[in-house]
Amino acid sequence: MEFLKLTESKLSVEEISNLVSSTSCGAISIFVGTTRDNFEGKTVINLQYEAYESMAIKSLQNICKEIRSKWQLVENIAIYHRLGTVPVKEASIIIAISSPHRSDAMQAVEWCIDNVKKSVPIWKKEVYDGHSDTWKQNKECMWSECKH
Amino acid sequence: MEFLKLTESKLSVEEISNLVSSTSCGAISIFVGTTRDNFEGKTVINLQYEAYESMAIKSLQNICKEIRSKWQLVENIAIYHRLGTVPVKEASIIIAISSPHRSDAMQAVEWCIDNVKKSVPIWKKEVYDGHSDTWKQNKECMWSECKH
Repeated sequence: MEFLKLTESKLSVEEISNLVSSTSCGAISIFVGTTRDNFEGKTVINLQYEAYESMAIKSLQNICKEIRSKWQLVENIAIYHRLGTVPVKEASIIIAISSPHRSDAMQAVEWCIDNVKKSVPIWKKEVYDGHSDTWKQNKECMWSECKH
Repeated sequence: MEFLKLTESKLSVEEISNLVSSTSCGAISIFVGTTRDNFEGKTVINLQYEAYESMAIKSLQNICKEIRSKWQLVENIAIYHRLGTVPVKEASIIIAISSPHRSDAMQAVEWCIDNVKKSVPIWKKEVYDGHSDTWKQNKECMWSECKH
């Protein structure tokens, strides 16, 4: 099963881990992306996320489809992305994937986060202490024409 | 910091994730090893773990030291292993590692679980439905003279 969500609520790693856990799986691999307090030498106050929601969900569904074609033993996939303001130390994204043996889940999570950053239309604004803020796509993003 | 624990209590992924989270880190990678309901075609009722505790902790400390020499940007490491009976779907081990950027934490967790399985003196008994039980080391184990 797949569990995909964009939400303004705080993300819970316990809840998302429970979603993917399965009696037939011996492994759950989880990635948590959190707000760091600094970026390129500047103090970050928080991050703010906005999404083109319908397109973002479609893009996450495609990522799940690709994961299942690459790792056929993957059982459940959860990708939760928080929108709005994400304070320092809190999670903006949690990915959890289960599989009978660990290598499938671990490889799939690594591929998944790389591809979420590349292809899902979610914008990020870094709010700095004493600097002006700017909206930008993820640095690894490939879907936009816009160059930085 | 390092957080190492062998415990008979149920493991909480939220608690262990919170232990390693840090304002200077943008990534937490987590591996959860759970009891599967089957092994080599037999129905598993539960797993039971026993450890040579003082040696197991020493061995986990060495693994942390190696992780820090291989991935110098790793910030916090938590390795919690449950002992005693672990029912189907529950976690026997949770590893969580934080780093500023994701590649360090992800690579370190993968290396960590491989090396916990290879070198930490923890025995596992699979309790089957209708078959006799046997204690054994992990299949990937290298520290024992005993061959299977």
